Amino acid sequence: MKSESVMIEGRNAVMEAFRSGKTIDKLFVLDGCQDGPVQSIVRQARKQDTIIQFVSKERLTQLAQNQNHQGVVAYAAAYDYASMEEMLQKARERGEDPFLIFLDGIEDPHNLGAIIRTANQAGAHGVVIPKRRAVGLTATVAKTSAGAIYYTPVAKVTNLSSAMDELKAQGMWFVCADMDGDLMYNLNLRGPIGLVIGNEGEGVSRLVREKCDLIASIPMRGQIDSLNASVAAGVLAYEVVRQRMSVRT
Amino acid sequence: MKSESVMIEGRNAVMEAFRSGKTIDKLFVLDGCQDGPVQSIVRQARKQDTIIQFVSKERLTQLAQNQNHQGVVAYAAAYDYASMEEMLQKARERGEDPFLIFLDGIEDPHNLGAIIRTANQAGAHGVVIPKRRAVGLTATVAKTSAGAIYYTPVAKVTNLSSAMDELKAQGMWFVCADMDGDLMYNLNLRGPIGLVIGNEGEGVSRLVREKCDLIASIPMRGQIDSLNASVAAGVLAYEVVRQRMSVRT
Repeated sequence: MKSESVMIEGRNAVMEAFRSGKTIDKLFVLDGCQDGPVQSIVRQARKQDTIIQFVSKERLTQLAQNQNHQGVVAYAAAYDYASMEEMLQKARERGEDPFLIFLDGIEDPHNLGAIIRTANQAGAHGVVIPKRRAVGLTATVAKTSAGAIYYTPVAKVTNLSSAMDELKAQGMWFVCADMDGDLMYNLNLRGPIGLVIGNEGEGVSRLVREKCDLIASIPMRGQIDSLNASVAAGVLAYEVVRQRMSVRT
Repeated sequence: MKSESVMIEGRNAVMEAFRSGKTIDKLFVLDGCQDGPVQSIVRQARKQDTIIQFVSKERLTQLAQNQNHQGVVAYAAAYDYASMEEMLQKARERGEDPFLIFLDGIEDPHNLGAIIRTANQAGAHGVVIPKRRAVGLTATVAKTSAGAIYYTPVAKVTNLSSAMDELKAQGMWFVCADMDGDLMYNLNLRGPIGLVIGNEGEGVSRLVREKCDLIASIPMRGQIDSLNASVAAGVLAYEVVRQRMSVRT
């Protein structure tokens, strides 16, 4: 992953960058410009939590590398997505069984950031997220990850369950969390493992759940429904860590 | 803890409610009112993440229970703080060793909410927070706690280390998390225990750390410094749960 930023100029290029899910760190807009396409870009930027600065024509022309900026200049951070193959390669290099975290539709950027941070500390080789109905690598995610985004690769896949099939064919096991699963302490979470964390509100989707070899439950002694998604990911990831360290008390 | 809300009317009463740390769920302000005291209340409300609605004189008069509202009406949620004694009582009633979570200056309301949620699910008897330099029970905390705030008592103490002394005299042990501690899996976290979680940026303060009987470390295999505070609290709280369940793998 690189950390330098890329400059994008012109309405189509900037809009396309937003649409592709690219992380725009900062958007400069010509102050007072009411054109429809520019307004659409501003709306998109607001939706994605991008920092927006309204600047004068002089300032914008100064910032731009060519004079065809059409009122918008964006700085995109180069948070590159990785491939699952790169993650497996990383595990091989370290001489470890692969340990990946699959997120089935995490929507809150703070949760995604915290989970990437946890993945880094728990020694996971990567985080896999779906293209649709999920937050991508935004500036908020980068910030909440406390820098982990520069070390722990994130892959974006079209279809989470096909990606799981692909890895299962290579000997990986999948475990997801659910209330009616087996107590996580009683499951064998050693070996090549994919840990699946569900959406904040709806949990793991049916299709993804059916692909899982194991269903783990975190003990829940309270009156409410569930844990925060990033806390649940942390508790489960560290159960994998504990078992990998083979510590017995 | 009760969930009904209380109506507060008039400038002094509303300002006092904010100052006392009471949770104001919603503030109604007379639209266009530029009076100094009302502006101060609005500033205070913004600081505390309160929902503000600017309404007409007619609407405000309709909302108020008396006509002396002076341009401000607030709905305060009745999130009551509990005492530590109530928490110990709760443990006695359940026939369990007390398990409390002490927060040494958590500033982010999302972290506090997530930790109260975790405390509830991990079967902790309460959460103890300091009066100063920490977030209290705001509407954001209540929301992030996913309702746990109505079940898990929260106590606010003037001095965290004196509160610890008090409980240590009653046989409670304290453990805090730090990088240079002993691996948490190797510590005995059974029995009456207080788990101390430090501030997001600075960790556990020196005075509080010195009161701790045990320093626990979470295995950190990554390149970054630490875990998110609510994730760290979750991982440690569930190590206590695991040891209390005496599960051996």
